[in-house]
Parts: sequence; structure tokens; C-alpha cells
Amino acid sequence: MARIVQKFGGTSVADIERIKNAAQLAKMEYDAGNQVVVVVSAMAGITNQLVDYVNQIDREFDPEEYDVVVSTGEQSNAGLMALAIQNLGIKSRSWLGWQIPIQTDAIHEKARIVNVNTEELEKCLSDGEIAVVPGFQGISADNRITTLGRGGSDLTAVALAGALKAERCDIFTDVDGIYTTDPRIVGKAQKLDKITYEEMLEMASLGSKVLQTRSVELAMNYNVKMQVRSSFGNTPGTFVVSEDEIMEQQVVSGISQSKDEAKITLLKVADRPGIAAAIFGPLADAEINVDMIVQNVSEDGKTTDLTFTVGEVDLEKAVNVLKKNKSDIGIGEIIPDSDVVKISVVGVGMRSHAGVAQKMFMTLAEKGINIKVISTSEIRVSVLVAEEYGELAIRALHTAYGLDAN
Amino acid sequence: MARIVQKFGGTSVADIERIKNAAQLAKMEYDAGNQVVVVVSAMAGITNQLVDYVNQIDREFDPEEYDVVVSTGEQSNAGLMALAIQNLGIKSRSWLGWQIPIQTDAIHEKARIVNVNTEELEKCLSDGEIAVVPGFQGISADNRITTLGRGGSDLTAVALAGALKAERCDIFTDVDGIYTTDPRIVGKAQKLDKITYEEMLEMASLGSKVLQTRSVELAMNYNVKMQVRSSFGNTPGTFVVSEDEIMEQQVVSGISQSKDEAKITLLKVADRPGIAAAIFGPLADAEINVDMIVQNVSEDGKTTDLTFTVGEVDLEKAVNVLKKNKSDIGIGEIIPDSDVVKISVVGVGMRSHAGVAQKMFMTLAEKGINIKVISTSEIRVSVLVAEEYGELAIRALHTAYGLDAN
Repeated sequence: MARIVQKFGGTSVADIERIKNAAQLAKMEYDAGNQVVVVVSAMAGITNQLVDYVNQIDREFDPEEYDVVVSTGEQSNAGLMALAIQNLGIKSRSWLGWQIPIQTDAIHEKARIVNVNTEELEKCLSDGEIAVVPGFQGISADNRITTLGRGGSDLTAVALAGALKAERCDIFTDVDGIYTTDPRIVGKAQKLDKITYEEMLEMASLGSKVLQTRSVELAMNYNVKMQVRSSFGNTPGTFVVSEDEIMEQQVVSGISQSKDEAKITLLKVADRPGIAAAIFGPLADAEINVDMIVQNVSEDGKTTDLTFTVGEVDLEKAVNVLKKNKSDIGIGEIIPDSDVVKISVVGVGMRSHAGVAQKMFMTLAEKGINIKVISTSEIRVSVLVAEEYGELAIRALHTAYGLDAN
Repeated sequence: MARIVQKFGGTSVADIERIKNAAQLAKMEYDAGNQVVVVVSAMAGITNQLVDYVNQIDREFDPEEYDVVVSTGEQSNAGLMALAIQNLGIKSRSWLGWQIPIQTDAIHEKARIVNVNTEELEKCLSDGEIAVVPGFQGISADNRITTLGRGGSDLTAVALAGALKAERCDIFTDVDGIYTTDPRIVGKAQKLDKITYEEMLEMASLGSKVLQTRSVELAMNYNVKMQVRSSFGNTPGTFVVSEDEIMEQQVVSGISQSKDEAKITLLKVADRPGIAAAIFGPLADAEINVDMIVQNVSEDGKTTDLTFTVGEVDLEKAVNVLKKNKSDIGIGEIIPDSDVVKISVVGVGMRSHAGVAQKMFMTLAEKGINIKVISTSEIRVSVLVAEEYGELAIRALHTAYGLDAN
């Protein structure tokens, strides 16, 4: 007997038929003799509708009440899922965030889980019941509903799997696993059987929408084995596991792209100590995340050029912040550019293999693609290129790193 | 300074614009120096949608999970209302049933309120906040969400008004008060300034959809002054008060009709002691409410005819129960009839005035309307007539009792 946490995303529980289908998937694990906890998202579209209501009232809303509103989509789906499972002849009940409780801090809208009390759930599972938990929600110390931020249902599932020492946390979604790259761009993209937490983390933060970054971090910290799989079939998906569970590691596991990037180039910046702090301090104060940064050596020793990237949604805000401080800091010119895409190759094998970055640069050069900015981590090389070259770059790299399916 | 509970029904909070409008009505009371508690229903249509989801899964659903699902419409509206009030510059927060708590029994789907803890709400009101409470929901002793049955938000409002010793409980809806009869049938129907609890109770249980019966009972028990008024204007509505607050009481205050009735006639029933118990016992076991009952004197002393009414929705079920027991009990023939309407005249003045029933019978006779069944209470006379004569009967009675507007 194993213990399994199953999480169904919004498209997997988008209507009653799909909820019934998901209940069948829970029943399959239950009938195989396992203890099952089901975590549900809201029906696809519902959370957006609720957020829209809140914004219609006040764009600068009180996050405490925001959480009261937006947590309802998961709550109703939890009740519906428990009913659908009961309808298959299995005892089931819903456990809301405040009933378990899933304790969080009081940072509403993006709360962090502090503790998951497993006592009631353990009792429920021992009684042969399937426990259904609404994702995305918890309760603060002062007894108010909190939500965990977008994609928070993944986080709920992993936190429960960790607290309940589950053997596996299955993330059911509308794709059947993690691919070497987006199959819509590269027809020969392959589904990965396994991927490491580290790689998944890089891919999640680099634009892969399949798993939420924080949930992968949490899974890594508690060594929760995740499986990304489709709720519309019954084939194995991609396991997200620790490095030692993968025998033969590819040098490069996948290629990601993120189009939600924008580049800002600052020309003729006064080249003096403290200049980076003077530029990036005000941006940080405005809660703008800066990602890649390159600074050119100045020719005259007096000014320098500086390029960095921000999220595309923050571009306008960032430019305004910079304009306000332009003369104080000593910036000659501000050149924004949102027609860029970040392409990354990811693989833990890079740690032991040299030449990965070099192969990337060569491949792009052969196709005549100009690299605007480069950044690297231990298991990743990212480059910023003009958006129009994005797909060409991905296809070329996918072939170059030997990822194409036969 | 007074304390006011305002309850907004589904049509009064059907979209964001209406929620904002309702928030303005709360602000008006607040600005007048009052303490304000706002109780909200779900957006019109939402609860039906949620109930429909539940029925799509299983018509014989678990009421515990039903409550988890259907209570979400009020919850999200409570958050939205608190936000709308904050947006007007007034401190406000939502208090969910389990946060207050509003303790109920564990009869899910139609729970009864056992206790309302006012401590937190009192604190909130003293701090100058407007407390927003989702209607219809409470919490059972074993920490599960309960709902109070259809129209339960009225009940929440009255219970809060009683527990908080509020001066008034305003029920905002899409009509501007209680009328002498349905204005769509009688153009000269008049809005009542005041009506007694007893009369309102009779009218509610006789088909007037404006107030939920149990909420009027509760208001009567705790002497909560209710006002039924429209959220789409700012005119006084109808006050529902105790009898001693009405100086000059009309003999008849209003005329109600209920079309949701069906008549069952049993012919040639064995006329022996215990026969009524033998007939109505199985109906009660099947949870069918029987309303009016008449038994004709038998001519031969061996059989009798018996007529009674049930809710139209229960007619088929009732006939099936009777058929099953037909020979055991000794029933000759079962004749169902759903083309009937119950017309009632209501007024506390009847207690001290004779001839009210007689006037009713005379008026109907003059119009050639045949009375099928009669039943009376201390402040009410009801007759069952063929449905096609319903509107004619109401108009004639409205005139006969002097209720027509000049």
C-alpha cells in the first residue's frame, strides 16, 4: 500500500464531466490498494473571473478580502470532487484549508505554507476515505483565509505529499509530461521520462508553464517525487526526481524559451563606483525584478553602456523609474526593446561536461542569429535574441544537442 | 447611534455595479452615525448553478458536500462587498460563518442556527468597521460548513439582528415592500406601511416569496423589527413589526395565492377508526407535507370521501405511495388534480371581527367560483379553487375587503 497525492489542474476539472473523469483516476489508485489525497484547482476560467470582479471594484484591493473571494473556486470544486468520488462508491470528504488546517503566514495573495497539520487527514485515510483538498488556500494565524499565489494548487499538493510522506505526487494537467522543448515549435521534441528537480526549476522559471516554481522547490526540499501527467489518458508522464535517481543523465535535458522578457539598454552611463546600485536600487524599490545584466567596458573610461532584462509587464514601469532618476544617476539614453526572447538550454550534465555554452554560441552563429545578452548558471545557459529568431534558434539547438526524436 | 443589519438579496448584488450600489446604501446608514452589519446573498443565479453542478454528479448527493459547494456564492460576494465598502473609504471586513462563528445543528442543507457568537462582531463594530457576513451559512459542532436552506440569508440577517440587538433589520430586495396582493394581478394593490409578524408569516407560507418563513418566525421570537425595501431606490418599505406597534389594524391586510398546490381526492374509503392515520402515516414517512384536509360525512356509514392537498412537486410521489397502500388501507379510487390554486385572506383583525370568512364565500359565490376545500386559522381563511378562477377570485376579494387603492 502506498500513499499518493493527486492534483488536478483547472483544465482537468473544468466541468462536471471532467471532474467525474478525475474521480475515476482517483478510484484507480484507490482500487490498487493505495491511500489517496486529491487536490483540486478551480474550474478553468473561474479564478480569472473572480479576480476580474475584484479588479472591477478596486484595482488597489485589500488582499485579505481578495483571498476570501478567489479561494471560492477551489472550495466548490473540492465539494464537487468529493461527491463525484462518493458516486463511485468510495467514501470521501472535502477538507478545506482552515479545516485541516494548512497554516500559512499572513502575506495574503501569496502566502507561504508554515505548517500542515496531518492529524485529521491521517485519520481520514486510515478510515479508507479519499480526502479531497482545495488547492491554493490556507489559513493565517489570525484565522483568515489566505491564498498561495498563482499556481498555488501545485504547492498545496506538494506540501501535503511532503507532510503525509506520500510516495508520489501526481500533477494531472492537459499535457502528458515535460518535453525536451515545446512540441508546437519542434515536431521532434521528445517527452522526458525523468527530469531532475534542478532542471525542472530552471525550466519553470524560464517560461515552462507546466509546474509552478515554488512547488518544485518545495518538492526538492522534501524530496517529494512528482509526476507530471495528463488526465485525458492513462500513460505515464514525466517524473521529477532527485539527481541520484537518474542513471544516465543527458548533458542537455531541454530547451526553454521565455517571451515575457524585455531588454533595456542604457547608453553613456557615468562609469563610477556605485553606479549599478544607483540604477538597480530604485528598480528594486519599485518591485521590478531584473534578470540578465551585462555591462560593456567603456572605451573612454568615463561612460559605459549597460543592458539588462526585466519582465515584459514591468517594462513601462521600469522605464518610468529610470527616466525619473536619469539625470541624478547620469544616464545618457534609455533604449527599451520588448521584441526579444530568452532561449535557455538546461541540463545537470553540464556540471561535468565542458563546451555546452560553446556549442550554443556556434549553433546560433551558424544560423546568423545575433546574441544580445548571455547569462549562465551551473546547469543552464541563456541567451537573449531578437524575437523573430526565437523558433529558428530552438529548432537548431534541439538538433545540435541531439534531442530530436528518431 | 443605532445598530442596523442590512441584508441584500441575490438581485441586489447580482453584479459588481449592484454590489457597489448596495455598498452606497450601507455607507448612508454608516454616515448617519449607525453601526452597520451587511449580510449578502450570492449573485442571482449562482446558487442555482452550483446546485445544478451537484445534481449533475448525483441526485442523491451527500448534503455535507452540497453545503461546501453551495456556500461559496455568498462567500465570494461577502469579500466583494467588503472591498466595495472599503472603496468608499470605510473600514470593512468579511466574517464567514465559521469565523464568527454562527453555530448551527448538523442538519445539512437546512440547518438551524443554535447560537451566534457576537464577540468578534461587537469588536469590529466598536472599531468603526462595517462587518460583512455571507448569508445562508453556518458551522456545525464538528467544524463543517452548513447551509440554512433556501432563503437562508434572511435567516442569517434576522439571527444577527437578534443576537446583536439591532434596532432594525432591513431586507433589501427587488420589490419595494409588501403589497395587499400581487400588483401584477391587481393594479390597485397597495403597498403596506406595516404588517404584523403573524400576517407576514401566513403570507410567506402561503406563497408570498418576499420573505422566508423561518426568518419571520425568528424575527417574531426575538422581536426584531424588519423592513422589506428596494435596493433600487431610497423609499421606505414595509415594516414587519409586532401587533402592538400597529394602531389601526385593517381586518384583512392582504390576499395571497399559492399555485404550487395539488389536490388528491380519495373515493370510497373504508370509514373506520384509524383510517386517517393509515392514509397520512405513509405520506409522512415519505416526507410529504399534507396541508388542507376535508372528509365528507359518509351516507351509508361504510365508506367516506376524503380530499387533501400536497405540494405540487410531491403529487406524483404521493399518488405512488397511496397506490402502493391502496388495498391495505381500503381506498376505492385516487383522483389527483394539480389545476388548483389556494387563495387566502390574511389579517390579525379577524380575531376581533366576525364575518370575514362569510364575506369570502359570498364574494366567490357571486362570481360563480366553486370552492373545493376550505381551511382556516385564527388570522387566515384559505380556499382551494380551480386554477383558471384564481386571478378573478383575487381581484374580487381585493375589492370586497376594501383593499383597492383610490
